[in-house]
Parts: sequence; C-alpha cells; structure tokens
Amino acid sequence: MTPWDTAVQAWARSYRAAFAAHPRTIPLPMTSPVRAPRVLEQYERAVSLLLDAGFDRAEIMPLIIALENLVLGSALDLAAPETMWELTDRILTPHLAEALAAVGEGRADRAFEVGLAAFMNHARAFLKDAGR
Amino acid sequence: MTPWDTAVQAWARSYRAAFAAHPRTIPLPMTSPVRAPRVLEQYERAVSLLLDAGFDRAEIMPLIIALENLVLGSALDLAAPETMWELTDRILTPHLAEALAAVGEGRADRAFEVGLAAFMNHARAFLKDAGR
Repeated sequence: MTPWDTAVQAWARSYRAAFAAHPRTIPLPMTSPVRAPRVLEQYERAVSLLLDAGFDRAEIMPLIIALENLVLGSALDLAAPETMWELTDRILTPHLAEALAAVGEGRADRAFEVGLAAFMNHARAFLKDAGR
Repeated sequence: MTPWDTAVQAWARSYRAAFAAHPRTIPLPMTSPVRAPRVLEQYERAVSLLLDAGFDRAEIMPLIIALENLVLGSALDLAAPETMWELTDRILTPHLAEALAAVGEGRADRAFEVGLAAFMNHARAFLKDAGR
C-alpha cells in the first residue's frame, strides 16, 4: 500500500492541477456543498487512509481542510498574471524588487511546494507527538 | 519592534478576515496585478521585515505567496455553507461521518489555525537551518 504521505501529496498536486486547468470552478466550493457520490467516496477514502495512518478522528477534517485551503489558494495563484506585482518609479519598493528578481520564474510552483512541505512536516509531527 | 513571526501571523489573520468579509473579492487576485501604491508599500514592508529577520532574498516571495494561498483558500472556505458535506444513506461514508462529528463547529477556523501553525513552524525552520 502507498504510504499515507505519498498519497496525500499526490492528491494535493492533482487536485491543484485540476482546478488550475478550470480556474472558473475555484470559487465553486464557496457556494456548493459536497454531495456528489463520487466526491463523497473520495473523502471517505481520504479519511480512512488518515485513520489507518494513526491520526486522531478529531484532527482529520482540520488537516484535510487546511490542505484544501492551500490547494485552492494556489490554484487561484496559478491563474494569476505572471507579472503579479507592477512596480513603479513613483513608489520606492527596493526590497520587493530584489525579492521578486531573486525568485525568478515559477514563483507559483515554488510557493506551492513551500506550503505543501510545511503541511506535510506538520502532519508528520502530529503522528510523532502522539507516538504513532 | 514586533517580532517577525507575530507580525506575520497578525497580517495573515487580518487579511483572511478582510477577504472573508467580502467573499466576492477573493477571485480578484486571479485577474488583477498588484499596482495600488498602498498595496505595493505593504509588500515592501513585509519583504523588509523578513529580510531583517534573516530570510534569504530568494526564499521570501515563495513564503509570502504560500501564506497568501492559505489565506485566500481559507477565506473561500469561510464563505462556504456550514454543512459542507451532505452525507446520504445511498453512499456509505462511515469514517467521513465520524471525522465530521469529531470536529464539530468551527471547522474552518480550526483548519486555518492548523495551516497557519504549519506555515509558521516551517518558516522558523528556514531560519534555524540557516543558523540565523
């Protein structure tokens, strides 16, 4: 069986790619509850995987939702213009200019990987703290 | 001066609250680059704060964007219906039902705090790894 952490990361990446391919669907979770049988079954599988890995029942939905927040926010960002910050001579922003130059291309992917690594480390620490 | 981590958390919470109060504005970053002088100045201050704290220039935008992803995703979630998963007798989802019952009220806030704690721990580890 795939370890839970590999499965969770694969799910997060594919979910992000799906929303990024259809950015108009990103605000949908805002208005529509989850009731499609296939989607409910996916959540059931995700919860079962995390229970089997040793997470407490009460921890699981906050973890899943926190990961969804990151995925949806990042999908919004992927749909954003590549030049997200339009600097101007009228406002002095030397540090912002340096930071933007230092990150270069692929800032959305880099940011998502930072967020995903943060999430995975935190989730692993939940298990370790509980001695599981 | 406020320590960087207190300032970052306060910013994340207030930014989330502002978007949650005006959910129709959440998809805006998808289409509109940042060019308002006041907003550019805020980014300049955020970058300066993180540089002073000891972060590498190349790390800063991915960190800021990862936190924005979490904040925007969570603001979308706050605007969602309270009953986000509509379980049905036709689909067996016993583990999902248990996990939802265990988390109770305030799932969006709990999830945001999990995501924010994950982010802050990860950011602090960046500084520690660099011996700063």
